[in-house]
Amino acid sequence: MSVTYALGFEASGVACGLKSSGNKDLAVVVNRGPLQKAAAVFTTNRCQANPILWSKEVIKDQQVSAIVLNSGGANCYTGPQGFQTTHATAEALAEQLGVASSDVLVCSTGLIGEQLDREKLLSGVTAAVQSLSGDGGVFASEAIMTTDSVAKRAQAESAAGWRIGGMAKGAGMLAPGLATMLVVITTDANVDSNVLDFALRAATRVSFDRLDSDGCMSTNDQVTLMASGASGVRAETSEFEKLLTQVCKELALKLLDDAEGASHNIHITVDGAASEDDAVEVARSVARNNLFKAAIFGNDPNWGRILAAVGTTKAAFDPYNIDVSINGVLISSKGQPAGDRNLIDLAPRKVDININLNSGAQIATVVTNDLTHKYVEENSAYSS
Amino acid sequence: MSVTYALGFEASGVACGLKSSGNKDLAVVVNRGPLQKAAAVFTTNRCQANPILWSKEVIKDQQVSAIVLNSGGANCYTGPQGFQTTHATAEALAEQLGVASSDVLVCSTGLIGEQLDREKLLSGVTAAVQSLSGDGGVFASEAIMTTDSVAKRAQAESAAGWRIGGMAKGAGMLAPGLATMLVVITTDANVDSNVLDFALRAATRVSFDRLDSDGCMSTNDQVTLMASGASGVRAETSEFEKLLTQVCKELALKLLDDAEGASHNIHITVDGAASEDDAVEVARSVARNNLFKAAIFGNDPNWGRILAAVGTTKAAFDPYNIDVSINGVLISSKGQPAGDRNLIDLAPRKVDININLNSGAQIATVVTNDLTHKYVEENSAYSS
Repeated sequence: MSVTYALGFEASGVACGLKSSGNKDLAVVVNRGPLQKAAAVFTTNRCQANPILWSKEVIKDQQVSAIVLNSGGANCYTGPQGFQTTHATAEALAEQLGVASSDVLVCSTGLIGEQLDREKLLSGVTAAVQSLSGDGGVFASEAIMTTDSVAKRAQAESAAGWRIGGMAKGAGMLAPGLATMLVVITTDANVDSNVLDFALRAATRVSFDRLDSDGCMSTNDQVTLMASGASGVRAETSEFEKLLTQVCKELALKLLDDAEGASHNIHITVDGAASEDDAVEVARSVARNNLFKAAIFGNDPNWGRILAAVGTTKAAFDPYNIDVSINGVLISSKGQPAGDRNLIDLAPRKVDININLNSGAQIATVVTNDLTHKYVEENSAYSS
Repeated sequence: MSVTYALGFEASGVACGLKSSGNKDLAVVVNRGPLQKAAAVFTTNRCQANPILWSKEVIKDQQVSAIVLNSGGANCYTGPQGFQTTHATAEALAEQLGVASSDVLVCSTGLIGEQLDREKLLSGVTAAVQSLSGDGGVFASEAIMTTDSVAKRAQAESAAGWRIGGMAKGAGMLAPGLATMLVVITTDANVDSNVLDFALRAATRVSFDRLDSDGCMSTNDQVTLMASGASGVRAETSEFEKLLTQVCKELALKLLDDAEGASHNIHITVDGAASEDDAVEVARSVARNNLFKAAIFGNDPNWGRILAAVGTTKAAFDPYNIDVSINGVLISSKGQPAGDRNLIDLAPRKVDININLNSGAQIATVVTNDLTHKYVEENSAYSS
């Protein structure tokens, strides 16, 4: 399961007191080899947390022995003291595993601007190393949760004999620029480093990058892929990319499903676009429109708000030759009303918006959530 | 007061049945001259309502005799039938006033995608013409309201003997690209057409364009300025621009104060920017961040969300040399926490966010609102 579904990995998740709830808050994933290759993508937010600054250096040689992740604090905008905490965490884990600290990635998640309790963190590292196991993936996936209501895990297996497993956390600040959230994916396939890197970028581009729950980009997002080669099987590149994309999409949809306070999962597909970039731009403009998102919460097929959002983009289209369908009902066509809005049932959680720009053959889907009272409640009632 | 504060104008506001509430829903403002100069700015949304398409043609010769505005329907995405309704409205008003329909502007506001009842609209035009008066500005300002809870009016007088008066409506979909909302401003100054146009663009750029209540740009926004010259006084250009900007800012703040469901008015000032555009980009990124807006609703000085928003922009700055103050308390400086968050009192409606990029001498302020339960309620409970 999770990151220990693939051979060659051990993991653990422990509680070290960073979360006031007493829940698990520190995870470690170790790659026992024989290979220790890795790739990672990071948030494109320019305001980046200390663990991001650290991990970007570590990943440069594409060699990673282990990753340590904590919830209960983002360690972002905590200055030199915060960076030293990240460094000390990597050093402590490296020493106990007998590896180089320059091969240890660090991730943090939680409130920005608060120092992490270094003593608790380091005692957590020791406890996590002591409880490492080949079955520890589930515990690790629990330890990275913040406002998540469930742990997110996914896996896939190739008929050729290799596996991919992964875990993710994230329920708010969900709008990646390149990478997103905290995600760790492991594989026991034998894959070249450049393929790992290429496949990870290709997979995240059509999965996490198409998830835009609330338009807010995090300072701490990191997606890490580690390969052990423990299956002894060399993966065929296109199959590896396909299964990796499948795992990323499954994790992205689980994040969507658990987004803070959401009552609808909205799939916005833009078809007939002149380019894929145009399709993504148009879909994202709708995904970020608060009036549209509030209407969906109210089960109101208010398609005028969709077109008002589309009109703010620079994509190629004739504004009076756009088709809009909601849950399969064509509701506006060629600049005027089409079908009967009373035929649209917005009660189910899943909502399909289809926008045809009639300007080309490209297509893309961005997934988002509605804007609800619970979203406002969860993000106003306490700091997170 | 309102649009009849300046000499040379008559106005009226009547109920013609477009609003199911029976409230006033049609306004007319007539310029009795001797001059009939005008300027207008329009939404930059590419999906534009029929009255926008019409008015853009009318304004080309900078000559306007009258403007008719209806609430109770946006007449947007209503196709050729909708355009004919706009045209018929202008024709009817022109005929009754004895002017050319090509000198009559039309504005509409309300739900997108529904045909206006042409018969009600035309009977409203007749009633409005019959009740035109030099004191009718207040009625006109009431007739353009949609979800507004109060009518918005402003005025200014020059010691030289000329006046400016105005009215505005708008409570949602408040994020202009160039113009915004429905605004009509009148003056009895004698001003050249090119000065009218220049002054209006300059004034809206620093007033309505800096108002971003909910990030959603309308399909129907129009700001119209009409000059009668009835004071007989030629306005000095810089003073005219100054008073016009003052009136626009006052109307913009009244829109902010009445924005749907809002409990805070948030003034986001970005200082130390390399350019004014940078300052606006950074301020707007914060104004559109739902997590930040929800935190302010919860009276939570969650400054990490401010920096996370700033980091998504392309403005010139060092992310670890930014100062953030909330209500005068320096809360983050040089990439780490600064003051005590407990000193920040977010109970008052007005909130001041100051962000110093330490990268130049330019400054700009964007005003926005918080994200509240009432906003979600008002925009989900019914179509608007």
